[in-house]
Amino acid sequence: MIGFQDARTMILDAVQPVGRITVALERSLNHVLAESIIAAENIPPFDNSAMDGYAVRTEDLQRTPCMLRIVGEVAAGGVAPKALQPGEVMSIMTGAKIPPGCDAVVQQEWSESPDKTQVNITRRVERGHNIRPAGADIHRGATVLEPGVRIRPQEIGVLASLGTQFVEVYRRLSVAILATGNEIVGIDKPLADAKIRNSNAYTLAALVEELGCDPLALGVARDDRDELKRKITEGLKADLLVTTGGISVGKYDLVMEILREIGAEVKFWKVNIKPGMPLLFAVHGVKPVFGLPGNPVSSMVTFLHFVKPAVRRMSGEKTVDTGYSLHAKLEHEIKKIDGKRHFIRGILESRNGALSVRSTGPQVSNILSSLTKANCLIILPEEGVQFRAGEDVEVELL
Amino acid sequence: MIGFQDARTMILDAVQPVGRITVALERSLNHVLAESIIAAENIPPFDNSAMDGYAVRTEDLQRTPCMLRIVGEVAAGGVAPKALQPGEVMSIMTGAKIPPGCDAVVQQEWSESPDKTQVNITRRVERGHNIRPAGADIHRGATVLEPGVRIRPQEIGVLASLGTQFVEVYRRLSVAILATGNEIVGIDKPLADAKIRNSNAYTLAALVEELGCDPLALGVARDDRDELKRKITEGLKADLLVTTGGISVGKYDLVMEILREIGAEVKFWKVNIKPGMPLLFAVHGVKPVFGLPGNPVSSMVTFLHFVKPAVRRMSGEKTVDTGYSLHAKLEHEIKKIDGKRHFIRGILESRNGALSVRSTGPQVSNILSSLTKANCLIILPEEGVQFRAGEDVEVELL
Repeated sequence: MIGFQDARTMILDAVQPVGRITVALERSLNHVLAESIIAAENIPPFDNSAMDGYAVRTEDLQRTPCMLRIVGEVAAGGVAPKALQPGEVMSIMTGAKIPPGCDAVVQQEWSESPDKTQVNITRRVERGHNIRPAGADIHRGATVLEPGVRIRPQEIGVLASLGTQFVEVYRRLSVAILATGNEIVGIDKPLADAKIRNSNAYTLAALVEELGCDPLALGVARDDRDELKRKITEGLKADLLVTTGGISVGKYDLVMEILREIGAEVKFWKVNIKPGMPLLFAVHGVKPVFGLPGNPVSSMVTFLHFVKPAVRRMSGEKTVDTGYSLHAKLEHEIKKIDGKRHFIRGILESRNGALSVRSTGPQVSNILSSLTKANCLIILPEEGVQFRAGEDVEVELL
Repeated sequence: MIGFQDARTMILDAVQPVGRITVALERSLNHVLAESIIAAENIPPFDNSAMDGYAVRTEDLQRTPCMLRIVGEVAAGGVAPKALQPGEVMSIMTGAKIPPGCDAVVQQEWSESPDKTQVNITRRVERGHNIRPAGADIHRGATVLEPGVRIRPQEIGVLASLGTQFVEVYRRLSVAILATGNEIVGIDKPLADAKIRNSNAYTLAALVEELGCDPLALGVARDDRDELKRKITEGLKADLLVTTGGISVGKYDLVMEILREIGAEVKFWKVNIKPGMPLLFAVHGVKPVFGLPGNPVSSMVTFLHFVKPAVRRMSGEKTVDTGYSLHAKLEHEIKKIDGKRHFIRGILESRNGALSVRSTGPQVSNILSSLTKANCLIILPEEGVQFRAGEDVEVELL
């Protein structure tokens, strides 16, 4: 049995980013950037006004109030009709280009204009007042985004502001999903005696979709050597294969055997966690294979903690963690004696301004319905035995 | 000027869920459920074994160890060949249906089997030991999911386990996006003097996509009455219209005028927040219209705090908030004197097990690049003036 961190390290060491493609900017959301973005333009491209008001020459404002001549108007997108001469101002809008000769903008509120030809400026301002200089946001030549960043709406905004029409990103992964077991029946079939529905494949396909990957549904393989071998071989055409079931200690658990038979290297089997202990990780050439336990909760918990980081790394993402961890006050005592790392389905709430968390109830690993009540997982580390009410525990948002 | 909470209340009161559709289960992710899901089956459908071991009759275990006769085997998905008689056991696998006559399962570890016909049970167990009863997860007839719930992978899993092939959900919203202003140029056009790129429309389309809606890009409207009117009218064919720019105090800000002209009711203009103060909210019939400020950061911040909850409500979601708020220790002092609610782009990290947050730097509202560095927004309430280093502040994940 391997430890949680060791298992993750082994997985991240075994996988590598897949190929790159170029996509249109509007199709790049949730992809991972594969190139450095260097600014070819200044943002903003020119000095512009931060306010509606008057473009002035500060040397004209030695004494205020002072009456100055309005010689034009600059709207956003427009160009000043001329340069400002001593004693002259122009009316200017937010975002408009600063006219030549102007070195500050006095906001509307600090002026009184008796008619369209003149304005009384009531306050003196410093040079540069209300001027947003060219390149203040992004300097031409600066590295704006590094490869390995997942593209969010704000990254798209920055790329658009730089006039980027096409972006080099890592391509979407295909993730094959195979449910195994004689007891598993598809949702479109009648439920015969002693059978249960294939729920894992649907949960996993949705998790894969949430990660921006294409799920490849292989359906259900019976506990039959030939059928399993055929479907596993099929699944290895995807970038990553996830199976569920068939990896605990029962006689009908053939997945590991077949993986070895077709030349996969089993990196580990069993991790010191609960639920999800009988997790299997193997590689076939460069293709990672995860054998997730058949219990629905174990299957989802192991996907989130082991498959997800692998997918993120293979999608080109540099960091697979958030960089912060959340903590909350435990509402009731939890005991455990097995020395495992526990993931407890939890309900996180704010109480008196602090985060508070409680378990959704019984934690047996086939109770998937409890995951629909949960908005987090409570993480109890390996070494703990008794976690008291009021104690601080780590939580992970779902 | 209206307060933050009042503005949100007014918006949520003004919008209602759109129509419903029926989709295949595998297409339902991120939709909102529009029907109650009542379990037509028990989950699990039958009493089954929680372990690999032996199906026993507890009355045979009055004295342990005791040697019992192995009369068969039940695999997951299989049915026992016969009922258990006194003195008989069957080998049983995890998930397999409990044979008639059996009232407990003894795990493998508590048994020694000298040959295939008999087994020595070493420990006594209670009735029901290692038996997961039918309906333990979900009882037939129980309400499993309520309308108004956003469908996550675990909800899909539960629906699959109930054999649900089709689900009634609220349909995807179409959200029209219109950038306005003579200064705005599309990303596929050369950048003429005094012009800037259309970045907002791209950021907003990505935000809309993230919410599971269809963005309808209307492009850029110049500050021209006819063009604006035409594009706004076009945009009102969507479920919701978002404009950016054209709503501050400048003379070229025509959006509000035109909205009134075509019969929209302006619900409010200007909210007591920074950035994003000149936010406009109007309704045209049942269609909500948001006039977002033209500054990229203001535009994104107001989308997240005002458009997003409206979209969630219109998508059928019952609760538009998470139910918890996060807090972190502020790393440096921040002052403000304007009595507004501030949203500061922040970097959230864990330091010595506690959450710690700092600003990304200058907060002028045109610096979109700072949002690419941020992983959260720091929320400073209206009443505060000075927020000291080490003080607890609310943060919102981005």
